[in-house]
Amino acid sequence: MNKFLFFGTKVNETEVLIEGDDHRHCTTVLRNSVGAQILCTDGQGHKIVGTLDSIHKKHSILRINEIEKHLLPAHQLHIAIAPTKNISRIETFLEKVVEIGIQEISFIYTKNCERKSIKLDRLKKIARSAMKQSWKYHEPVLNELQSYQDFMSRDFSASANFMLHFDNVATHLVSADFKEKNLFLIGPEGDFTPQEIELSKEKGFQTMKLGEAVLRTETAGIVACTVFRMGLIS
Amino acid sequence: MNKFLFFGTKVNETEVLIEGDDHRHCTTVLRNSVGAQILCTDGQGHKIVGTLDSIHKKHSILRINEIEKHLLPAHQLHIAIAPTKNISRIETFLEKVVEIGIQEISFIYTKNCERKSIKLDRLKKIARSAMKQSWKYHEPVLNELQSYQDFMSRDFSASANFMLHFDNVATHLVSADFKEKNLFLIGPEGDFTPQEIELSKEKGFQTMKLGEAVLRTETAGIVACTVFRMGLIS
Repeated sequence: MNKFLFFGTKVNETEVLIEGDDHRHCTTVLRNSVGAQILCTDGQGHKIVGTLDSIHKKHSILRINEIEKHLLPAHQLHIAIAPTKNISRIETFLEKVVEIGIQEISFIYTKNCERKSIKLDRLKKIARSAMKQSWKYHEPVLNELQSYQDFMSRDFSASANFMLHFDNVATHLVSADFKEKNLFLIGPEGDFTPQEIELSKEKGFQTMKLGEAVLRTETAGIVACTVFRMGLIS
Repeated sequence: MNKFLFFGTKVNETEVLIEGDDHRHCTTVLRNSVGAQILCTDGQGHKIVGTLDSIHKKHSILRINEIEKHLLPAHQLHIAIAPTKNISRIETFLEKVVEIGIQEISFIYTKNCERKSIKLDRLKKIARSAMKQSWKYHEPVLNELQSYQDFMSRDFSASANFMLHFDNVATHLVSADFKEKNLFLIGPEGDFTPQEIELSKEKGFQTMKLGEAVLRTETAGIVACTVFRMGLIS
């Protein structure tokens, strides 16, 4: 029972609906039949132990036996990142940061960004798969690609805000003071423009670096997420 | 001139030989001709500025104008990792840790490891490409796949040695004391066996964890490398 975590929708206090790939994986691939014990999550913090109650062509129904509420971590991370030209690099980033622990991801279109569209549904599938793989009960929020200007027009007063940027920056992210909510901006392969950096400063962002190494966009995202999560432990 | 770093072999004090993909990339793709200024490295710590002296079918010769010797970092990392069933995951690990900074990688075949062979030449190409991409002048050492028993039969007295392992381990890697030379052991998807863990203890390895998250093998490798590199900065 304990080897797989499935994703389901809690329809009421006693039942969970399992659909799509999760339904097929649970019933066709793993051949679970009515009466089998299943572990699932609704992505809203619930770890649910249930019994397969009925199996249909495109969905199955789970009867809830136990439900456990998991809280979000005390320190939450939102990364806004420019998508890479080669989308598989952003997919690697996404899978890894979900495993390490992240609450929200925004995709931002900056001046030097070479990709103008993303398939959010595909990215959500990858995130959900990484979430189940790493036994997380909260699904991260993924936001549609938007322009840097639009993204920067919001109110950032509720979070600690950092622009991660390589060039001539003295302060390292490992020495940052994090708040309950934290936001990292990560630029494209061609970096942020001076105007974009200026705008982040006007909005009160602190500019920080991730070390002396030249990191690809997706590697910077993974390293930043690791520094954040691990930095809170020591 | 400064956009690409090529890999070349220093044949004497005045000349560098550029072959294979680097030769093709430099002369055919980027259309550099005789007299062009080129940046290259021999992977032995040298950053070389040179002038293209002659272009042949399968190689080109660079005349050295300037040579700069870079030292290895004061703290060096060797990761021994079990290759994943899906080799692309180990390739992701390799690319990312080379970017972040690593000196040696060994591939170990443990009891629960599902892959019995690796293509070392392909992995070396990936490492070299990541090295050039991230402007590193030292090529990491990559060792052939060997059994865990063979790997563990060596003398480990010159390094600080850690087994990274999830189950019920209290001490987190962020609080480790690193030496000049450091070795991390990272297990396969099915984890190390109790016997393998026991053997590491007999050989004086400290068992440590990487946090509370369930990480895939390759993610554990990337996170461990980040914790090591970033931990030395703070």
